[in-house]
Amino acid sequence: MYIGIDLGGTNIAVGLVNENCEIVHKGSIPTLKERTYQEIVKDMAEFSIKIVKDAGYKMEDVKAVGIGCPGTVNNATGEVVYSNNIKMDHVPLVSEFRKYIDLPIGIENDANAAAYGEYMALGKKIDSFVMITLGTGVGSGAIINGKIYRGFNCSGAEMGHTSIAIDGNVCTCGKKGCFETYASVTALINQTKEKMDERPESLMHEWLKKKGKINGRTAFECAKKGDKAATEVKEQYIRYVAEGVSNIINIFQPELFVIGGGISKEGDELLNPIKEFVYANDFNKYMPKTEITIAKLFNDAGIIGAALAAVNN
Amino acid sequence: MYIGIDLGGTNIAVGLVNENCEIVHKGSIPTLKERTYQEIVKDMAEFSIKIVKDAGYKMEDVKAVGIGCPGTVNNATGEVVYSNNIKMDHVPLVSEFRKYIDLPIGIENDANAAAYGEYMALGKKIDSFVMITLGTGVGSGAIINGKIYRGFNCSGAEMGHTSIAIDGNVCTCGKKGCFETYASVTALINQTKEKMDERPESLMHEWLKKKGKINGRTAFECAKKGDKAATEVKEQYIRYVAEGVSNIINIFQPELFVIGGGISKEGDELLNPIKEFVYANDFNKYMPKTEITIAKLFNDAGIIGAALAAVNN
Repeated sequence: MYIGIDLGGTNIAVGLVNENCEIVHKGSIPTLKERTYQEIVKDMAEFSIKIVKDAGYKMEDVKAVGIGCPGTVNNATGEVVYSNNIKMDHVPLVSEFRKYIDLPIGIENDANAAAYGEYMALGKKIDSFVMITLGTGVGSGAIINGKIYRGFNCSGAEMGHTSIAIDGNVCTCGKKGCFETYASVTALINQTKEKMDERPESLMHEWLKKKGKINGRTAFECAKKGDKAATEVKEQYIRYVAEGVSNIINIFQPELFVIGGGISKEGDELLNPIKEFVYANDFNKYMPKTEITIAKLFNDAGIIGAALAAVNN
Repeated sequence: MYIGIDLGGTNIAVGLVNENCEIVHKGSIPTLKERTYQEIVKDMAEFSIKIVKDAGYKMEDVKAVGIGCPGTVNNATGEVVYSNNIKMDHVPLVSEFRKYIDLPIGIENDANAAAYGEYMALGKKIDSFVMITLGTGVGSGAIINGKIYRGFNCSGAEMGHTSIAIDGNVCTCGKKGCFETYASVTALINQTKEKMDERPESLMHEWLKKKGKINGRTAFECAKKGDKAATEVKEQYIRYVAEGVSNIINIFQPELFVIGGGISKEGDELLNPIKEFVYANDFNKYMPKTEITIAKLFNDAGIIGAALAAVNN
């Protein structure tokens, strides 16, 4: 048994994960991120102990703890070097956590953890694997020969921060044209709003009145009802996603490429046009093609990946 | 001792490489690429034997042969799956070569071989290494944990074929906006010609009269003399290169990033503004930075890398 913790800006999700990469029991508590890191870590540890007990296990059954955390994480020192989301600056997360639970503890960037979770859930070793998560930003992780790829400084695999449009949209990272500024759900919402401003006749205005707030589903749902403006938003957004996916595949040519995040629940509606663009623009024309699929674990990927990365990486 | 062969569209360069990654003796013969592959391979093998003899060694001193080849290479089967440059379609290069020299033989994509040569010439193991070669196209290779990264289908690490400008320039690969279409020397020559058309007063016209032909040095040389139009070409070109380098670094965060190809002989003139842009746009703001340098081996990288890849990869 392993404990996996997904430390987010809003919630701390904790799960007890078994050897088959399954969550036996899980729960979450609010992060209350304005607190000191010592208070947050105390809660994380105590809640972890509660999850193990509630599942009917003892702490002696647990072999390791893995923590997924947003931001720059130094896996070697167990330090959160910097996190913007939860204000952390050179926080010794592992040593603080060990005050409560004295087990092997690993920390991992949350996008890397999610990718590793999806990878491990395959139940088989493959040569190479890349996942992107379309959410507030575009998270990403690469698993090469069964290992999380981090770069020499634990800061790599930031596919969301590669420019697909020179001198394009300004990104929160300071760079211009980042894939994230076109393909995140935040970007999709902006694209939806802009189109609504241009097109007062669009069904999306009615949708807004009913639902109260624009979100990543607005354009997809109105497009299904035949709305032209919504279809334009959807198609342009998918084109942006496909542009980045095509770039990443030309670099990694991974055996499997997985798309996660809430918007990935659109399934084939999202996946099929991406595949079409990517295969048509693949530099590789003569060797087997990368398989492209939708993620399977959704929010559980972070918990499972953090737990298993602590053991294996 | 190892034999390294760089099979190019114009010449077949062969070198005898020692255990210290140095070329002991080398030479080249024309490829005459319109011939059958059997004829080309026969020449490659016979010239290799001659190079060994001329260097004062015997074939018994040679432990392995490595062949670097443009296009898609299947390292596992020893086949050139496809090459556009030298017309090859599912050519069993290794088995054909073995008819003449019965030694361990490896084939490798030429850009991967060049990257591996530069990596091995460092004389030390580093975590991760990426090289791009700015030439007719933009070649690239990544060495991760001492191994050439190829993807699951031997077609990976094509950094030149990632789009930096959605719906931008059409690339020879069929995709639009590829880094190669902005940052290759071919692209630089086009950018130079376009600017010359706009700016009849530019010194570059005089340069052309003197030298007879526009090349990758035209803008750099005239910029040094203070020509404004040439400076604009140079700065814009460097900006394009930097855009792609920044993308690749945000993905790999390699310990070392190397820029090769003829244009890299411009040295700091090219390197310093690239560094400035890349470090300013690095997603990694809190961990050690990737070192960025100019390649050291130039044309020898392909020979040395092919030879050593045959032994180690």
